[in-house]
Amino acid sequence: MTEVCAQIRSMAQRARAASRPLATAPTERKNAALLEAAARVRDGRRRLQEENEKDLAGARRSGLPPAMLDRLTLSDRAIEQICTSLEEVAALADPVGEVLRMWKRPNGLLVGRMRIPLGVVGIIYESRPNVTSDAAALCLKSGNAVVLRGGSEAIHSNRALADLLSQALASCRLPADAVQLVPTTERSAVLEMLRQEENIDLIIPRGGEGLIRFVVENSRIPVIKHYRGVCHVYVDQGADPEMAVRICLNAKTQRPGVCNAVETVLVHEAETERILPGLGEALQRQGVEIRGCPETLRRVPGAVPATEEDWGREYLDRILSMKVVRSLEEAVDHIHRYGSLHTEAIVTEHYGRAQRFLREVESSTVLVNASTRFSDGYELGLGAEIGISTTKLHAYGPMGLEELTTTKFIVYGQGQIRE
Amino acid sequence: MTEVCAQIRSMAQRARAASRPLATAPTERKNAALLEAAARVRDGRRRLQEENEKDLAGARRSGLPPAMLDRLTLSDRAIEQICTSLEEVAALADPVGEVLRMWKRPNGLLVGRMRIPLGVVGIIYESRPNVTSDAAALCLKSGNAVVLRGGSEAIHSNRALADLLSQALASCRLPADAVQLVPTTERSAVLEMLRQEENIDLIIPRGGEGLIRFVVENSRIPVIKHYRGVCHVYVDQGADPEMAVRICLNAKTQRPGVCNAVETVLVHEAETERILPGLGEALQRQGVEIRGCPETLRRVPGAVPATEEDWGREYLDRILSMKVVRSLEEAVDHIHRYGSLHTEAIVTEHYGRAQRFLREVESSTVLVNASTRFSDGYELGLGAEIGISTTKLHAYGPMGLEELTTTKFIVYGQGQIRE
Repeated sequence: MTEVCAQIRSMAQRARAASRPLATAPTERKNAALLEAAARVRDGRRRLQEENEKDLAGARRSGLPPAMLDRLTLSDRAIEQICTSLEEVAALADPVGEVLRMWKRPNGLLVGRMRIPLGVVGIIYESRPNVTSDAAALCLKSGNAVVLRGGSEAIHSNRALADLLSQALASCRLPADAVQLVPTTERSAVLEMLRQEENIDLIIPRGGEGLIRFVVENSRIPVIKHYRGVCHVYVDQGADPEMAVRICLNAKTQRPGVCNAVETVLVHEAETERILPGLGEALQRQGVEIRGCPETLRRVPGAVPATEEDWGREYLDRILSMKVVRSLEEAVDHIHRYGSLHTEAIVTEHYGRAQRFLREVESSTVLVNASTRFSDGYELGLGAEIGISTTKLHAYGPMGLEELTTTKFIVYGQGQIRE
Repeated sequence: MTEVCAQIRSMAQRARAASRPLATAPTERKNAALLEAAARVRDGRRRLQEENEKDLAGARRSGLPPAMLDRLTLSDRAIEQICTSLEEVAALADPVGEVLRMWKRPNGLLVGRMRIPLGVVGIIYESRPNVTSDAAALCLKSGNAVVLRGGSEAIHSNRALADLLSQALASCRLPADAVQLVPTTERSAVLEMLRQEENIDLIIPRGGEGLIRFVVENSRIPVIKHYRGVCHVYVDQGADPEMAVRICLNAKTQRPGVCNAVETVLVHEAETERILPGLGEALQRQGVEIRGCPETLRRVPGAVPATEEDWGREYLDRILSMKVVRSLEEAVDHIHRYGSLHTEAIVTEHYGRAQRFLREVESSTVLVNASTRFSDGYELGLGAEIGISTTKLHAYGPMGLEELTTTKFIVYGQGQIRE
């Protein structure tokens, strides 16, 4: 075994050992550690920025684009945001120990399901240093130890942040090993991490499709992930034209580069005169390129023809494909054929079709008369988001604190035996 | 690709296609299909028994032990039991479409989580033909298509049963492909099944540890399983002696060969005189061999010394290891070190230690003053059991209909957009 492998293995074992006391740690102690971490990050701002400057210098040398440099920078504002996030997680309800429901069996046994942590979570992510503290905070609050592996371009910033978090844990009599950062950027370290199935219970990759595919293909540990967000808005027959325009514009242009932005708008054929032309024009006015089916091209001047590849593409840009469909069924079929199980919305005034869309579309978030941009842990009210899942095992859709837990059965008896 | 591989692939694709209409099928239609299946099994009893006789003849030729032959036999009583189980599943509540809870966001969005089927479930099991109908019934009721792969010794019985189930589906306008049995006993068929990650969402292996390890090591699809049940009863200081004896006897002897039978009893050192001797004697009177720690040997005449290997062994027999511990902490540590995350019980009259045991033991079922034998889907009130999980992702402990579902987010809006 190489030195790197031995190091990763030892980290995973220490994480497992730390997970036991953390699993039953009192809520107040976990909250105190989160607030202490926020205080230490605020106090350690200068030192953090010195370390961050090393990353930035490296990034400039290797020619990282300005947008990436921006995400990497720990400005005063970025550091304050990290502290606020830590404080916000402290303020969230602790899911651990919650009993979901209890029921009584005919023999008098009282049976319930109690939330417990998963154990050890591995997070593999790219560039942004705030993921280090955000992910660690959510794991800590849900009673899980965490092994973090950030991108090489942020290694100095991540190390400094993780050190502060570990120190905060220790100062609150919690195991410092509950937050550990892989201190090397060698790829063999990631591979070894993905082989620690005895000591890591779940891997969450956050980043581009390439990173995620690499993790899925090499992991022996269960992975929760989503590859892409190919989100749809279906404008139904009889929809409110003003609402259709407002929702499609927001879903496409409020932040085009994210996974819950819309990529395809489907319009019912009865609305090709009343809604489609105005909708197309409004999008174009916001600089959106429209790639349309033949019927769309007839109604939206300036639209370009969509090819078969356009359906199913995640543009992450001011580009949108548009298609006229004959019915709700055709819309649902199109979504199941080309979608990515992420997020879909219907704009409708029709009660029955609203219910049918909610029931029949199997994506992880389905909305009626609201923007796809609400598909997000904070916006849906989970309090935070550790990731999004488009696979159905364990969690489906945005994941918050509860999705970092499982439940065990607890039983209160009075001496019952099985007959 | 070999012919077998092509056949399995085609089956998995047809299961995926069948899963779509099944996911939104009305409850009444699913129930009608289950009742129709029960009627067809009753009417087809003679033919089933002819096919079963082929399996039995083969099993006798290959020298299967009598207990295995017994489990393989479709007697009139066994067939009636299959029909009753189908009718019982029809009577259970349909989990699909249930909305777990809804909450309102400050912007007026109404957000909820709706239960939906997982999609396609693969079940890989041994000998008993009733698993064919039981597993198919639970998958059908929860809206999942199922691909079944039973043991070679029951292939004729399983084929005949699966045919009747498919016919019942078709006669109720549900897709016949929603229940499919792998018609060959070649091992390559199992391997190919485990590679169908595009079309099968979950694999549940049911059988011995060898089968389960083979499935886990070869599957690209998530597997839910448990290897062993090394269950513990901890008899606390001040426990009711009569209750301690009753629970330990029941947990060991009511059915020693199953996974929720107790394998190790831990006794607090304060009870080595009041409880331990009588408990040991009562177990021995029921033919249980006791393998004990030195202190146990002093108190229980006839007990033999336990070796290090005895802690952590699943005897599945009238053998029990016993150990004296100094405290609740030592009991919990022993369980975490040697247990299998299956089921543990405490016998106690002390409020605080009861709560601590429930909180600190991380096994999937934890009981106070009740036999470990209650760790079972029916006994805990799930209505049925498709398997038991001792891994924490997705499900932990006995799994019923709900564990064959996931939830998607549904959102009712009035035109909201994200600011």
